[in-house]
Parts: sequence; structure tokens; C-alpha cells
Amino acid sequence: MRTTIVILALTVATAVRAQSPAANGDANRIVDTILAGSRGYETLAYLTDNIGPRLSGSKGAELAVRWTSKQLRDWGLEVRTEKVMVPHWVRGEERGRLVSHNDQKLVLTALGGSVATPPSGITADVVEVTSYDELAKLGREKLKGKIVFFYHPMDLKLVASGRAFEAYRLAVEFRGNGPSRAAEYGAAAVVIRSVASASLRTPHTGALRYDEKQPKIPGAALTTEDADLVHRLIAKGERVRMQLVLTPRSLPDVESSNVIAEIRGSEHPEQIVLIGGHLDSWDLGTGAIDDGSGVSMVMETLRTLKELGIQPKRTIRGVLFMNEENGLRGGHAYFDAASAREEVQKHVAVIETDAGAAPPVGFTSTLEGKELDAFKKRMTVLGRIVPAMYFESSKHTGADTSPLTDAGVPGFGFVPDPLHYFDFHHTPADTLDKVDPKALAQDTAAIAALAYELAQNGL
Amino acid sequence: MRTTIVILALTVATAVRAQSPAANGDANRIVDTILAGSRGYETLAYLTDNIGPRLSGSKGAELAVRWTSKQLRDWGLEVRTEKVMVPHWVRGEERGRLVSHNDQKLVLTALGGSVATPPSGITADVVEVTSYDELAKLGREKLKGKIVFFYHPMDLKLVASGRAFEAYRLAVEFRGNGPSRAAEYGAAAVVIRSVASASLRTPHTGALRYDEKQPKIPGAALTTEDADLVHRLIAKGERVRMQLVLTPRSLPDVESSNVIAEIRGSEHPEQIVLIGGHLDSWDLGTGAIDDGSGVSMVMETLRTLKELGIQPKRTIRGVLFMNEENGLRGGHAYFDAASAREEVQKHVAVIETDAGAAPPVGFTSTLEGKELDAFKKRMTVLGRIVPAMYFESSKHTGADTSPLTDAGVPGFGFVPDPLHYFDFHHTPADTLDKVDPKALAQDTAAIAALAYELAQNGL
Repeated sequence: MRTTIVILALTVATAVRAQSPAANGDANRIVDTILAGSRGYETLAYLTDNIGPRLSGSKGAELAVRWTSKQLRDWGLEVRTEKVMVPHWVRGEERGRLVSHNDQKLVLTALGGSVATPPSGITADVVEVTSYDELAKLGREKLKGKIVFFYHPMDLKLVASGRAFEAYRLAVEFRGNGPSRAAEYGAAAVVIRSVASASLRTPHTGALRYDEKQPKIPGAALTTEDADLVHRLIAKGERVRMQLVLTPRSLPDVESSNVIAEIRGSEHPEQIVLIGGHLDSWDLGTGAIDDGSGVSMVMETLRTLKELGIQPKRTIRGVLFMNEENGLRGGHAYFDAASAREEVQKHVAVIETDAGAAPPVGFTSTLEGKELDAFKKRMTVLGRIVPAMYFESSKHTGADTSPLTDAGVPGFGFVPDPLHYFDFHHTPADTLDKVDPKALAQDTAAIAALAYELAQNGL
Repeated sequence: MRTTIVILALTVATAVRAQSPAANGDANRIVDTILAGSRGYETLAYLTDNIGPRLSGSKGAELAVRWTSKQLRDWGLEVRTEKVMVPHWVRGEERGRLVSHNDQKLVLTALGGSVATPPSGITADVVEVTSYDELAKLGREKLKGKIVFFYHPMDLKLVASGRAFEAYRLAVEFRGNGPSRAAEYGAAAVVIRSVASASLRTPHTGALRYDEKQPKIPGAALTTEDADLVHRLIAKGERVRMQLVLTPRSLPDVESSNVIAEIRGSEHPEQIVLIGGHLDSWDLGTGAIDDGSGVSMVMETLRTLKELGIQPKRTIRGVLFMNEENGLRGGHAYFDAASAREEVQKHVAVIETDAGAAPPVGFTSTLEGKELDAFKKRMTVLGRIVPAMYFESSKHTGADTSPLTDAGVPGFGFVPDPLHYFDFHHTPADTLDKVDPKALAQDTAAIAALAYELAQNGL
């Protein structure tokens, strides 16, 4: 009997080194606990239903900082806030009409950061282009004083084939840079077709970026329906005149915060595995998928570890970033403070979750080749959540954590099924009902499992 | 040889009586012509893109009367307009906020015909009910001065099983009569959950009907998202206070018109087969599926018959009714004028198309049992369009033609696939892009085939 016992003990010891079954036991326990009884949906419901929209500088954003801090503290976590000065852009009135076509009302929304039109609006002919090349060809003579209309529908075939983020990247170029590119030729304003994979006359906002060398002109997103209407009228050879009234204001910067909570590592507390989402949201919806769900995943991961009394070897630090949407000030503030503390290289890895709350399909990672393959093999615990999740190499694994990954910290980006993400993204329809509690729990379990593995066993 | 020829001639003669192959040849020709080269989508595009919304009393409605009249005349049809005095309700500002929950903006729309709130709005606690019984139980004491919230989601299982109109009928009760039922107990205003089978924060309007014995209070439809938000907050036991600002106006009645065009019957011109849709639309969208597509089907049927030089034995009369949405004044005006001419009973049948432009699935009919079965057998030509279309008995085959069917005229109601109709119905998203040109042509072919059969061979 004794011999047998010794042999068993040796087997276990080997297994501990190779697979870490005790630790794996904890990973399983974390996943199973979250799948069985996640309270993440309650967290998300409070953030979206009770607090609502959380644009940087708004009361909602401030309430979100206060409530999440208190909540994490109530769960027994160490919490601190990190000062971030954020832009304070306030959407005003936003109206459009086709004065050439029976004064039909257009449904549109100002792009984030847009300057205002004069109070009586801008009324001008619309010139449609599909590229910057076309813009250059038309030149100042044909564009001066006009409303430039960038018509670039999102590629729905890409979306359907699982590459929604690629389709987004291709179309969103004109939202970001279109206004300044058109201003270069004297345009009076820019409208784009909403970057959208679905629409019920649904405007999609998002930030523009002014080139400081060009005059700042107003920018707005038409719904896909309104954009297609203008496109059809122009295709018929008709002269289209549009009135645009936008009255946003850029107020002085406001002091706000990242919220940071952590579970200190038992052996290497100075080594950090960061999990992050962003607290701010656009103002049109209540930011359930962008990024209330990410915030909820981070908070629920910490709550679950605390509740289970699991303390991995390295620190798991949850960061709820402020101002991802229109400035990335939180991401930069975090990086600057970490640099000042000489802490950047102490980040074992960063995991960002900012892609909604559909069922999990994988992670992107800055790891490559064999290293990524080897790491993937360590993550068998994910099989408890869904049958298969991919790990795919990518230079970009998240916006808020990009200063860290740019500095060489290994990054992971969480990927829920992206098929419907851009149906809701940056719209009034980004609300709690778009999130399935079961999928949210699966997502949380995936984040928690990855964070735990990295914190317990390193990279 | 001669014998053979005689026998053949006899066979043909028999066939003419039983199946009317020459006539069937025309029916086939009509269907094939429409399927191959319908211009109905162009008609619909002009109505929706160039004219736009067509609420009764608006400039759009008047332009639609003028343009459709001219268009039909240009196609060589006999056209007349029939005077209809219509209500002139103008939507004003419409805003809502949850003053109890961080001033969150609500997305809502005034119900058609609603009275205004005071300019500063109505701010009151929200009381949720799901039925008139609950309203009665709560009584005046608990409802006085409150905003009554009728929470009755559309039954999506019914919608999915092909019974969207039944689901609509069950939910729309509260839109029509809710305000007056709540006013009976002293409510200050009513909000309902939009009667919707899909939403991206999309409000669905539609007419309310005031009971003249009750005080008139304002009524609005929240989007399903906003309604579900209020529902969740109330379910958590929270006090919900809402501010509603609605500034619609009811202006004096306006003179408008039904547009009537016909192809006179070659043998019985006094006998009429009516095909009808409605010219007016709600003001939020451009009325593509409600009911620009019906208008297009009626117009394209007439145009095709004219172009093909086909003149059936009885008259085919196309009627583009005014004011189906908020008064049915056109339907009544047509009936009254027909009564005055002693023409009501000269209607062989009426066919109404006001259910969108999805692919055709069938017709409802006031015919019953064997009579309907026998008629269905005559309509084999429909097999050229889609493999199978049903004929189903129903007392109600259309709103505009209901005065005629109530007077005993046989009715047919056209049914395109209803699955997605209430995704768009009465919303800003009822726009041209929701219509597939091929399905519209199939629909038109079905209407034309039915009208031709009735006009050529009677009922």
C-alpha cells in the first residue's frame, strides 16, 4: 500500500509542475462559479439603467466613478482612483433637412468633438465622394462651401464572415479624418454614412479627429437610410441641398478618474496582470455593450476571486478606464503614472475587454507563433465555457492598454462574437436589453480564467 | 383530318368555357410582364425619396395627390380626384426624461392625434399597468395626476408563427384606447410600449382615439428599450418620475383627395373591381411599406394593363385613398360618393393592399368555405409568382374598403409575409431601403392577377 501511495504522490508532484492541478482546480472553480452564479448582469444593470449614459465630463461619468469605487470597496477589494483630466464635449441640438426635396427631415447625429454650425445652420449643396482621391480630384473649386458627403457603406460581407472589426476600420476612417480632409478644400461641413451593420434609422456617433492645420468644420453621421436616400437622389442626377444645425459645445476639461482595484499577488505582488474596460460611454445610449459589459466583466472577476478567497501568485489589477471614447486620456494617465512608478515593465500582461458581450469566441494577443500556441495549450480551462476559443496574433489588442503594449507589455484583447456589435455600437440602441446574461457570464469566466492563469503561472 | 379538326375545335370551346384559356393567356401575360419589367419600384422611389412623408394635411400628402394623378394621366388612364376633408395634426417637439434617474433621456414619439402637454411638460410619477383591469383596481386615488404606463409587449411568438397582425391587434388596443381609459381615473398622461417586433431605440407612432366623454390627455409611445427600462426600474421597486414634453397641434381640416383611375370594362363597365392602397403615411418615415408599396402596386397594375392594351369585361378601378392612418376619411368619402351614385352594390369585389411589400403569401377574403375554395382554384395563375399562396376567410380585409365590405361587397386583403412588417411600421425606419424590388413586383403581379380574374370572369 505504501509503495502505491509513494508512486501516487510522485505522479501528483509531476503533474503539479506540468499542469498545476491545484491551480487548475482554482481556475475551474473560478469558471464554474461565474457560470453558475455571476452577478455581473446586476452590476451592468445598475451602470446602464440607474446611472445611464457616461460620456466623459458628464454627471453620469462621475456617478459611475463613485458607484463602481464604492461597490468594489464594499466587496472587500483595495480600491483607488487615479486622476484624469477629460474633455467635456456636450451634444446640443442636431437637425438636418433636405431643403431641395420637400424639406424632408434627416436623422443624424453630431460626431463626437464636432464644432457647432452657426445657430441658423449651414445650408449648402451636397457633394458625394467615396474616397480622398475623389476629394482631391474635385478640388477646392467644386468643394468650397459645400457639404461633403462621404459615402462608404460598411462591408457587410466582411461582417458576416466574422471580420466586423476589419469592416469597421475601413469605414471609420472617414468619421475620424473626413472632416479635416474635406476642410482642406474649403468644405463647409461633412456628413458620413453611419458606420453600421444594421439600422432602423439609427445614427451612430463616434469621435472625429481634427487636424490642427485645417479649419475645424462640423461633422455629422447620417443614418444609413438617410445616407442611402441622399446617395440615390444624387445618383438620379438631382441637386441635393441640405440644412445642418449642430450646436455642440466643448467646455473646459473636467477632473475625472480611472478606478483601480486589485487583488495582491501572494508571491510576486509587484508583478501585475491588468484587466481593463472603460467606464465612459457615448451619450446616445447607456453604453451597455460599449463598455458597460467590459466594466462588469472586470468587476465581477475581482468580486469572484475575492469571494472565493483565491489569491494568485501575482497581482490581478482591474482598471476601469475613463475617456476611452473621446480622448483616451485614462489610458494615457494610467501609463504615465505607471511609468513614473517604474511599473510598466512589471506588467506581466494586459487584458482589455471592449468589444461587447456576445458569447466569447476568442482572444487576440500580441504573442506570436509558437509562444502563442504554447500559451493557448495552457488555457484548456476555457473549454468549460465554450467548446473552442481561438487565440490570434494581433499588434492591437485594445485602445486603453495600447500605451502599455506599445511599450512591449504582452497584450490580450477579448473577442466576443462580433457579428452584431456594430448594429448597436455608438447608438441610442446600446442598452441593457442587448446583453444576454448568460453570454455575459461566459465572457466574464473567460476573462477571469485568462487573468488567473497569467497571475498564477506567469507568461 | 377534318374530323380531327372538329374535335379539336370542340375541345377548345369547352376549355374556353371552363378555364377561359384566352383570358388565362392575358392573366399569364400580365403576371409575366410585371415579373419581368415592373416599374413599380421607380414609382415607389419617387413617392418616398422625392416626396417623402405624406401625413394627411401636409405638403407631402398634397404633392402625392398631384404627382400620382399626373403620373396615371401620363400613362393614358382616366383619372379623377375625389374631395376628402382631412384632419391636420402636426407633430411638434417630443421629449421625455427620467427625472428620478439621473435625467436620462427617453426616446419616444407622440401618438397621432394626441393633445399637447403644457409647454413646460408634465412631470409625474409613473404607474405601470398591463391591463384595464389593473387600472380599475388601482382606481382614481392611485392614478390621479400620474403618468400611466401601459406595458404590453407584442407577442413575438405569435409574430414568429406568421400571426403578426394578431399580435399587433392585441397590443395596439392600448395605443388606441389607453389614453381615454386612463383619463377616466384622472391620469395626467399615458405612455405605452411601442407596438414593435424589432427596435434599435425606434419609436412606433399610430393614432389614438379619444373618448369624447373623457378629458383628453397626451399620449406617447416609448421605444421598447425605454419601456423595458422603466419596467425594470419599477420591478426593482424604485420610484420612477418622468417628464414628458409634447407639443403637437390639431389645425383646421384641410381639403385633400382620393385619387381614382380606371380601366373601363369592355362588356360591363358599370361593374367595378376596386384595387386600393393609401396615399397618406405617418410623418416619421417616408411610408415605403405603409403604404407607398400598396400605392405602387395599384398604379403599376393599371399601367401594365394599359400598356398591354388589356381591357377586361368589367371595370378595374384603382383608388389611392387619403387619410387611412388618422381618420379613414378617404375610405368613408369614397363610400359616401359611391352610395350617392347607387354604385356600392355594383362593386364585384374590392382588393386592398396595405400590409407592406414582403414576398406574397396569400389573400384574406370575406368569401367562405366552398365559395372561397372554388375561387382559389380559379387562381392557378398565382403559381407563376410563388409556388403557393393561401386564401383565408376573414371578416376584415382592409380598413379603407371596410365601409364597402361592411355593406356586403366581397373583399380581398393582400398579405405579404408579415414577419418583419412591425419592425418598421409607423416608424422613422419605414423607408425605401426596406422594400425589395423583386418582392414588390411579385406582390404587384399577385394583385394584378386577382383583379384581372375578377374583372374578366366575375366572382
